Amino acid sequence: MDSKEKIKKWLSENTNTGVKFLQRLVQEPSKRGQEGKAQAIVVEKCRELGLSIDLWEIGDDKLKSHANFHCDRTHFEGNPNLAAVKPGKGGGKSIILNSHIDVVPEGNLKDWHDDPFSGIVKDGRVYGRGSTDMKGGTASLLLALESLIANGIDLKGDVIFQSVIEEESGGAGTLATVLRGYKADGAIIPEPTNMKLFPLQQGSMWFRITVKGKSAHGGTRYEGVSAIEQAMKVIAELQRLEKARNIRLNHPLYKNIPIPIPINIGKFSSGDWPSSVPDVAVIEGRMGIAPIEKVKEAEQDLEECISRLNSEDPWFVAKTVELQWFGARWLPGSLELEHPLMEALSKNYTSVLGDNPIIEASPWGTDGGLLSNIGDTPVVVFGPGTTAVAHDANEYIEISKIFKSAEIIACTLIDWCGEAGVK
Amino acid sequence: MDSKEKIKKWLSENTNTGVKFLQRLVQEPSKRGQEGKAQAIVVEKCRELGLSIDLWEIGDDKLKSHANFHCDRTHFEGNPNLAAVKPGKGGGKSIILNSHIDVVPEGNLKDWHDDPFSGIVKDGRVYGRGSTDMKGGTASLLLALESLIANGIDLKGDVIFQSVIEEESGGAGTLATVLRGYKADGAIIPEPTNMKLFPLQQGSMWFRITVKGKSAHGGTRYEGVSAIEQAMKVIAELQRLEKARNIRLNHPLYKNIPIPIPINIGKFSSGDWPSSVPDVAVIEGRMGIAPIEKVKEAEQDLEECISRLNSEDPWFVAKTVELQWFGARWLPGSLELEHPLMEALSKNYTSVLGDNPIIEASPWGTDGGLLSNIGDTPVVVFGPGTTAVAHDANEYIEISKIFKSAEIIACTLIDWCGEAGVK
Repeated sequence: MDSKEKIKKWLSENTNTGVKFLQRLVQEPSKRGQEGKAQAIVVEKCRELGLSIDLWEIGDDKLKSHANFHCDRTHFEGNPNLAAVKPGKGGGKSIILNSHIDVVPEGNLKDWHDDPFSGIVKDGRVYGRGSTDMKGGTASLLLALESLIANGIDLKGDVIFQSVIEEESGGAGTLATVLRGYKADGAIIPEPTNMKLFPLQQGSMWFRITVKGKSAHGGTRYEGVSAIEQAMKVIAELQRLEKARNIRLNHPLYKNIPIPIPINIGKFSSGDWPSSVPDVAVIEGRMGIAPIEKVKEAEQDLEECISRLNSEDPWFVAKTVELQWFGARWLPGSLELEHPLMEALSKNYTSVLGDNPIIEASPWGTDGGLLSNIGDTPVVVFGPGTTAVAHDANEYIEISKIFKSAEIIACTLIDWCGEAGVK
Repeated sequence: MDSKEKIKKWLSENTNTGVKFLQRLVQEPSKRGQEGKAQAIVVEKCRELGLSIDLWEIGDDKLKSHANFHCDRTHFEGNPNLAAVKPGKGGGKSIILNSHIDVVPEGNLKDWHDDPFSGIVKDGRVYGRGSTDMKGGTASLLLALESLIANGIDLKGDVIFQSVIEEESGGAGTLATVLRGYKADGAIIPEPTNMKLFPLQQGSMWFRITVKGKSAHGGTRYEGVSAIEQAMKVIAELQRLEKARNIRLNHPLYKNIPIPIPINIGKFSSGDWPSSVPDVAVIEGRMGIAPIEKVKEAEQDLEECISRLNSEDPWFVAKTVELQWFGARWLPGSLELEHPLMEALSKNYTSVLGDNPIIEASPWGTDGGLLSNIGDTPVVVFGPGTTAVAHDANEYIEISKIFKSAEIIACTLIDWCGEAGVK
């Protein structure tokens, strides 16, 4: 039996313990600022596997002063970041396996059939907040590692497993791993891609636009200028900009996507009294950044659009529209489709599942943007969960996909890092 | 010296006590639910003048079940309504002098140069919340009455002075006077018209429109439907409706008004996350009602507009736009320009000020709508304050205008009610 067959066999024999591990992980509500207990479960598993543990609280000056630190969290005590290394025997390529431990809030409790952190198993699925995004992915990575270690399969290159905080809030955890020196020849991030391969990831950033009007009594509204009406002109400009940016984008993976890099208006708020002409409107939105685009270029596009309005529109000449970048940011990521890591993953996908993988570009940013742009580490996003249920009530993950993903990843590690022999 | 000359003389000799009365009135912050203390000052003055006092707490079932009771206030204890009558000697026309005692909140304290309830006198003005809207008007009415009584001038018709609560919140106080039986051959309401005569008043009512979209992640916004974009279609329809309604309106007093009966969008609120496609948008606004229009007709106009959208627009066929009438309402008011009360006021305006009065239509509703529509009492709105400073920081009223208004009103009472002789 060769190593890959041993892995398949081991995984099929260890379903129950794998599922139980994921259930325990889901049962710890690792919302922002409460990641510690779930992280402890991961650390315990890494110790059991004999990995070399690096556990630290992020937030030093180097991190906080970094240009890509977009984070409003004030303290990180008690909720550490983890890197756990299975050192290679030498002569092979290294790889980072990056997963985040933080989960988004559970939302409206009434929408859940069970407790959001039940980790209950039903119909071959594990349910609960974070099951798909992305504790199921974490389980896949650790099962992949355990299947190698349990079968005594040594690799030539280092495998660096990371369990980071803050992904959902802009990536300070992964940025901290890069600044601590963790880089590799490749990386896999098991975000919920429904087992598709995402070599490209759309980045994104948030903006706030403030539009001014002139207040008046609603009965003489012609004496005022409605900030709502003025904001509608700004929205029309944003729509034009979105169109222009998407026409410019030309990549085979995007040919079937209606709007590859959307400008989304997520929030519009103006006025506080039905009988008054509102004098301020605030728009908040998310601007997509193309995988191959520099953040600065995308920023300039929007800044120029607003500047043009401010110089050409008579009202805005008098009352300047204000643009502010705020909140979280996700860097885009881009890997050539023919990259060896893509080949290795694709090959093992096909041999495990008997089909070619679907290759797409992600419509959202991941920590991969930081690993690739700041950490110079080529990234493929590939994981067992599904975006459709992430961040939603009754989030779940299919157990079979966790184990198939683990098998594909373990086999890819053998090919990528190189087998050093069996103990 | 005839009666009108005596009135002029008395008013010129009683400036100080008149101003002090107004100052005391302004110094009692009679915001909604706290009208009692200011009302007590008015009652005291009416007792002093020997008027027949009717002081009562409104809120009986007859009021609360009335179709024009649009009020969310739960109790009225301790903040009574007042009617105070100077009975006529018989054979003359009666008149109601209606003023409201409630004032709007002071707004942002930082915008005020002095305490909002200082009642301070500077440069011939009394400053403070409510000075112009409309305690200065109340002072004019009481000075008019006092100038008659002090000079022993008896009238043939009844003069019914009213100091009501709730005008700023939709008129439950004045509605209560009508339901208690107070009607007359005419009425003057000294709202801040800057001494113009307003025989016509625009009515208004509030609406709330809820527009639905479909939520999605901003990175795949094409999978959702933006409630903001859908709401923009509704706003475009409201703009068309406003245009059509104003073209239809044809009245000489409106020929110079850009939009006689506006539909004002005062509030727009949608979405709560920059990266999500918002699935609900809520618009709140105020619809103007033409002076000669029935409320029901105006309601139908907007209801039909929304129904049309709901039957013709494919998205709205699936996700119905909801229209809700809510909050306060002000009935419109309309008096023919040649009405004898208009003539009496105009004549005395000219003889006191040496000029013809400016006659306009008010862009806002007053309690006059209730007096005329429900109480069958012809109404002219005429007062010393100015709309421009009402509801704003540093509200003030010019003292000279209070006394000129008082003189015009007192002389009008003589002509309207008929002089019964001097004691």
